Amino acid sequence: METIERWKTYEFKLDGPINGNPFTDIKLFGIFTNNGHSRKVRGFYDGNGVYKIRYMPKEIGNWTVNTESNNTDLDGQENSFIVTEASTNNHGPVQVQGQTHFVYADGTPYMPFGTTAYAWAIQSSERQKQTLETLRENKFNKIRMCVFPKSYNYNTEQPAVYPYEGKPKKVSSEFNNDTWMIKPEDIGFDFSRFVPKYFQHLENQISKLDQLGVQADLILFHPYDSWGFARMGKKFDKLYIEYIVARLASYKNVWWALANEYDLLNLIGQKPLEAWDFIGHTVQHEDPSDHLVSIHNFYDPPQHKDTTKNWYDQSKPWITHLSIQSDNLYFVPKWMDEYRKPIVVDECRYEGNIEFGWGDNSAEGMTDSFYRVVLRGGYATHGETYIDKPNTKRSIWWAHGGVLYGESYKRINYFKQLLDENNFDYVVPMATEGPHWELAAGASPDGQHVFVYMGDSHPEFEILDFLPDNIEYSAELIDTWNMTKKPLSEKIKSTEFFHMPLGKYQALLLTKK
Amino acid sequence: METIERWKTYEFKLDGPINGNPFTDIKLFGIFTNNGHSRKVRGFYDGNGVYKIRYMPKEIGNWTVNTESNNTDLDGQENSFIVTEASTNNHGPVQVQGQTHFVYADGTPYMPFGTTAYAWAIQSSERQKQTLETLRENKFNKIRMCVFPKSYNYNTEQPAVYPYEGKPKKVSSEFNNDTWMIKPEDIGFDFSRFVPKYFQHLENQISKLDQLGVQADLILFHPYDSWGFARMGKKFDKLYIEYIVARLASYKNVWWALANEYDLLNLIGQKPLEAWDFIGHTVQHEDPSDHLVSIHNFYDPPQHKDTTKNWYDQSKPWITHLSIQSDNLYFVPKWMDEYRKPIVVDECRYEGNIEFGWGDNSAEGMTDSFYRVVLRGGYATHGETYIDKPNTKRSIWWAHGGVLYGESYKRINYFKQLLDENNFDYVVPMATEGPHWELAAGASPDGQHVFVYMGDSHPEFEILDFLPDNIEYSAELIDTWNMTKKPLSEKIKSTEFFHMPLGKYQALLLTKK
Repeated sequence: METIERWKTYEFKLDGPINGNPFTDIKLFGIFTNNGHSRKVRGFYDGNGVYKIRYMPKEIGNWTVNTESNNTDLDGQENSFIVTEASTNNHGPVQVQGQTHFVYADGTPYMPFGTTAYAWAIQSSERQKQTLETLRENKFNKIRMCVFPKSYNYNTEQPAVYPYEGKPKKVSSEFNNDTWMIKPEDIGFDFSRFVPKYFQHLENQISKLDQLGVQADLILFHPYDSWGFARMGKKFDKLYIEYIVARLASYKNVWWALANEYDLLNLIGQKPLEAWDFIGHTVQHEDPSDHLVSIHNFYDPPQHKDTTKNWYDQSKPWITHLSIQSDNLYFVPKWMDEYRKPIVVDECRYEGNIEFGWGDNSAEGMTDSFYRVVLRGGYATHGETYIDKPNTKRSIWWAHGGVLYGESYKRINYFKQLLDENNFDYVVPMATEGPHWELAAGASPDGQHVFVYMGDSHPEFEILDFLPDNIEYSAELIDTWNMTKKPLSEKIKSTEFFHMPLGKYQALLLTKK
Repeated sequence: METIERWKTYEFKLDGPINGNPFTDIKLFGIFTNNGHSRKVRGFYDGNGVYKIRYMPKEIGNWTVNTESNNTDLDGQENSFIVTEASTNNHGPVQVQGQTHFVYADGTPYMPFGTTAYAWAIQSSERQKQTLETLRENKFNKIRMCVFPKSYNYNTEQPAVYPYEGKPKKVSSEFNNDTWMIKPEDIGFDFSRFVPKYFQHLENQISKLDQLGVQADLILFHPYDSWGFARMGKKFDKLYIEYIVARLASYKNVWWALANEYDLLNLIGQKPLEAWDFIGHTVQHEDPSDHLVSIHNFYDPPQHKDTTKNWYDQSKPWITHLSIQSDNLYFVPKWMDEYRKPIVVDECRYEGNIEFGWGDNSAEGMTDSFYRVVLRGGYATHGETYIDKPNTKRSIWWAHGGVLYGESYKRINYFKQLLDENNFDYVVPMATEGPHWELAAGASPDGQHVFVYMGDSHPEFEILDFLPDNIEYSAELIDTWNMTKKPLSEKIKSTEFFHMPLGKYQALLLTKK
């Protein structure tokens, strides 16, 4: 009998019809049963007469699967398999714990340190290898990436394979805003017919990410579209969600990002704002494995009063955590308080030299954002947008993956290492209000360590009045930019001043005596 | 006949009773008449049987003043005087123009570049001389200062003279929060009897500020009080406002700041929130010269959702401009849009090494804040909080005045000079939304110049798409920290990329070709 580890993909493969439109004609489900409990899971057509039902079992023991279908060849099939304990490097999917942080299913701590390469999985195979190699060499453990190709500045290449049957009626090698305004009569794709090869490749790359311990924060829709994939309408959105969830929900490292900049799709006229409740609800309904779900904004969060109307109601039950675009990092603790969900600031200005404000941050600025977000209890996402010349097609990490040219990623690695070495399974934020709101400070859950980030403040005399009373700490002075640490001779107490050596981007790592 | 320049103080001096309580028993008004138009102005008792009615005439020509009083010696007195044109350095009071900026009454441009020395006017006479000398040497043209003494960390000295008759029943040389909780039975002052000497000195120093071209942003109430002046109750608040306005409204460089941190007075239990409408309305009603009026917050502006309830309604008619405490400078254009009044960010973290977040900013940070606020169309205020040791009584500019130790004030001078030299009578903000929101950029009103501040962004290739179409600019590259400028060889147009030399805290000063 087939044996798999818990949290790995079990796949039940069946042969079925190839006539008609198997994507829309055939309904196929598997009933997965273990220990008297069953779950109904949608199957999908993978081309060449092959149908698959995939499932990620959580419970160890004996399982059976029985099919239901409107096609007699596919109906009433049955199989059994055994689910065993996970092996060492299999921690299961990431889930929310303690309202505002994350953990792997087996209890292993997980703090997302994300990066961004929207269209990496449709670049040349050499570039894709490079991307995986870059991820292997660094500590990023989540990547924001799109299912669909991307049409935007510096992203004007057509993919080698399209996700749907057909081809574009118009192709422009120059990107301009008109590209997004594709008319219905100019759409050259049949949204009822997927191209399995496109998705097979995607899931193959997701698998490779999983082997590297990287979560695939998979963007289902985005506005940077010149093919019509952002404006398929409710019927085909539903078909797409059913298909993508059926294909990918058994991959433990998948997160569903309903959209990148959901509100921009509305502005451009691709999708009404009301669409997102349906999309979110459908993803939640289709996914038998309860993966993480988020939605990402174009406009500022509602602290920017004028755009409150476009801020998605993040308290909706299918939203497991917030995926925020904002550089106003002061608000992280307030968002935490308001939503009681994990706060992931997925865009807070990338390091780069591109012509847009979201992508011309310095390496110092990008590093600073990580410290500020993470020590306030949130999670940050990196991106890199270095161009060699305007309007050229050089590989840019943020879009294509490849290699990193910047300086912030090294400091982000260092920060992650410090957190890992000092029991920061997550950060308990401190000092978010009161006289030290300008710092970013957080404790390890066991209270043994406190990490205090000074940024560009330079108190020569400091008193950390937010520390617990009557506890003495030893301190290491961290130079977050030069990635060095050295012990501070003074002991730190909440009631006593100490001398703080002058410097920029400094932090203190305190340890209980 | 007496002759004075317009916008200077005319003073009608009268002898009257010294028995009873002249501050409360005597009602005295002057009816000032010019060209058939009259204005009723309250007089005040200045001690030793001397009563005064002061007025700052705006119109040139012949004036008369006739008194009204409940005392026969003071009633029915009359005098005449002539008001002449202003001399060269007399530009009159500052007023609001064009909704969101300021101008002197004679049309001379005025951009507030403020600083802060709350209690400078009650320090030793040597220190006060130092303060005035420091102001003379620099370009600050507004100073935030309190009428009442201040009781707070590093401010534990008792003044030599008190504003009211009496003396404190309890004096502590150590500051602590209990100091603010003074009980009614511990108040040692008679709030119905002012000490004219205290106020004579204050107005003398305000006069000296005027000679230096510095506006006195005069804080009427503040919470840092161990004497009871912050909790006198409505009756004595009214008496105080009538008295201070009668004394000082004829000084052209006076601005009324109803409070420093008005909402903190409520938190501490000194004054209910409702008090401020009465105070604001009374100031407006008493002031015959329509000086600028503001109120300053402790809590964040309402972008911080939890404290909306404590944000003073800045649209009230007596509020002429916003006096904001916040380091979230991103919101300046939004506050401008919302209130259509000038935005003065009077506290955005002072340069210093004190133990509080509001006073441990780096010189770079303080300078950066000036560029960001001013080029977004607002106005910023400097403060400096360098201590030599914790808990010592060394003179700190923010509280005592004296000398400046920091580095930001030099850069702020340089920025002011650049604005003055390039026709920035005020700044027309640009690029507050869209792809370059991360910059701070503004044009001179004549459109000849655009000032673009890059801060810590470092685009290597830049395109300033917010510039007007079809205009070519030459550019100077400003190093805001090293205070140097050099021409950029490339010409700048809204549609063309240019190479931006790498550097921190850089700005571009563009000039129309």
